[in-house]
Amino acid sequence: MEREVLVANVDKEMKIALEKYEEPKDIKRVLSGMRPTGKLHLGNYFGALKTWIELQDRAECFFFIADWHAITTSYHDTSALSENTVEMMADWLAAGLSPQKATLFIQSFVKEHAELHLLLSMITPVRWLERNPTYKEMMENLKDRELATYGFLGYPVLQTADIVIYKADTVPVGIDQLPHLELSREITRRFNRFFGNIFPEPRPFLSKAPKLPGLDGRKMSKSYGNCIYLSDSEEEVNKKVRSMVTDPARVRKTDPGHPEVCSVYAYHKIFTPEEKVEELEEACRKGEIGCVQCKKELAKNLNAFLQPIREKRIEFLRKRDELIDVFVEGSKKAREVARQTMEEVRRAMNFLSV
Amino acid sequence: MEREVLVANVDKEMKIALEKYEEPKDIKRVLSGMRPTGKLHLGNYFGALKTWIELQDRAECFFFIADWHAITTSYHDTSALSENTVEMMADWLAAGLSPQKATLFIQSFVKEHAELHLLLSMITPVRWLERNPTYKEMMENLKDRELATYGFLGYPVLQTADIVIYKADTVPVGIDQLPHLELSREITRRFNRFFGNIFPEPRPFLSKAPKLPGLDGRKMSKSYGNCIYLSDSEEEVNKKVRSMVTDPARVRKTDPGHPEVCSVYAYHKIFTPEEKVEELEEACRKGEIGCVQCKKELAKNLNAFLQPIREKRIEFLRKRDELIDVFVEGSKKAREVARQTMEEVRRAMNFLSV
Repeated sequence: MEREVLVANVDKEMKIALEKYEEPKDIKRVLSGMRPTGKLHLGNYFGALKTWIELQDRAECFFFIADWHAITTSYHDTSALSENTVEMMADWLAAGLSPQKATLFIQSFVKEHAELHLLLSMITPVRWLERNPTYKEMMENLKDRELATYGFLGYPVLQTADIVIYKADTVPVGIDQLPHLELSREITRRFNRFFGNIFPEPRPFLSKAPKLPGLDGRKMSKSYGNCIYLSDSEEEVNKKVRSMVTDPARVRKTDPGHPEVCSVYAYHKIFTPEEKVEELEEACRKGEIGCVQCKKELAKNLNAFLQPIREKRIEFLRKRDELIDVFVEGSKKAREVARQTMEEVRRAMNFLSV
Repeated sequence: MEREVLVANVDKEMKIALEKYEEPKDIKRVLSGMRPTGKLHLGNYFGALKTWIELQDRAECFFFIADWHAITTSYHDTSALSENTVEMMADWLAAGLSPQKATLFIQSFVKEHAELHLLLSMITPVRWLERNPTYKEMMENLKDRELATYGFLGYPVLQTADIVIYKADTVPVGIDQLPHLELSREITRRFNRFFGNIFPEPRPFLSKAPKLPGLDGRKMSKSYGNCIYLSDSEEEVNKKVRSMVTDPARVRKTDPGHPEVCSVYAYHKIFTPEEKVEELEEACRKGEIGCVQCKKELAKNLNAFLQPIREKRIEFLRKRDELIDVFVEGSKKAREVARQTMEEVRRAMNFLSV
């Protein structure tokens, strides 16, 4: 019962945030980050990376590997952290992010984020954080009690610092992140009210990319084990596509199919040329093509999409030091911007300056 | 009613902490800090500074001006922050802290404190912080609701970072700080359990100096307006001593006095040579000396104690840039130590190192 009330609240917060949403115009500076929790999958690509790649041609972009955020939920075991960080670098560059177009950096290399996080923590009421849907949900879920750490409670404060330290006006986010960004805007307003108009209020930018289901039809998520990774080999992709759930009502090849409930069809719409998709759809509805053949066509197209990413990925990882260096250099650039903001913040708050 | 329960709990926590207390032996590295909230008074001197001055001859000491901590409770108005920081520098050096003996620095000049604070925040359960007596008391006090900020809730986490980043084994504290240090020890143990034995568990060191009452007999505190400041002029001291409360049962000079309830007597025991104190005590009990005369003697001795501090203070403030430079140099030294610890911490937590 209580659980339902909470979930209802979560949805309400999300609904309010969505109703307020307007796509930002005149985007000048963009910031976004990803937690390095493992290799990227197609859900990550279409949910975020694709939007970033488009934005890097339109605006000044800062994209960071959120290694500090990564430990909010996995502090018990950080053994894969540095390896995941490097894997993420390879995924990003292979997918098309470019250090010539955007500043790509590592959060923990820019200590100023931690400094601003600390300062913002001083003005952020605890009750604002307690009403964060993600925190409420977790608190309600007793088995995750160990996650109720001070850092977990405060991660929207760190997110706010991440954003405003670059004076970013726009933040590409998923729908589920809208309430967090709303909180960032509140914290920003409160800071500006106390110390002067230093930070722009960051606006959300929602990805227009279609949602890609996981192999089992649920949301694609590492924890469900239903992902196709950017790094999957041709064989892995073939095998995974063969295992995808299709229309459950279709038992025999000659049964008429219902593409609208079929995950394979959802993928075709993205990875297969339009005429071919129409052809497949018609054949499926008429029971003229079997799932096996339809999946073969998808696996072929999916591999055609992944092949260049996969190759570049391997190439980047082969030159590991050069890869890391791209992000070290990016971190220096980011740090210079962050340092300047912090000087301004310190002056505004009357810290001693020398 | 609830209030009483809470206060009872506070006392209980304090009692437990006091029972556990043992004066540390073989002190190697000491850390302590003070919030720059204004000029130092005699309560600050005898409660902390005097102990620090003794410790700087016995161990490697790090003492810092806690400017980040200063905004936990006064974020609404930070206008005096940088001036208070400089005043504190003058107070410290004038009272006898020496940059030749101890590392004297400014907290916000060592960003690594903020970094470690962030990392410790990830492993610190919120419920540990919620049971902090200071926080509980504040939460219970509705008019201070605005103080229930995320930063206020987490200041024991920042304190822990302040301490362990120097691997300090000993922390001079007041009795009221014992529960906080106990919490720091818990956070330290938890970190060490997850990531290896990096930090020693800091031990408290209690000042043995006598408690000095304020002018009105209550605890000396800026908020009560009952302080004698290290910077008070001779005239101010004379005036303040004249206003001190004495034995309320003594109306006429010839009434026998009760020195044990007299603030002036408590001061004499510190500032007046022993034989003279005995003489004054006897005369008071017999009604042979009036409070006016007794206070004149105290003012004279108090001024003799304060005169060199006062003069040095003015001298240090006259050379303001040199004064600040002492702390800038100290901050560089502190930062080098903190940086090394953070490298170790980053490796232990598997952050990418380059």
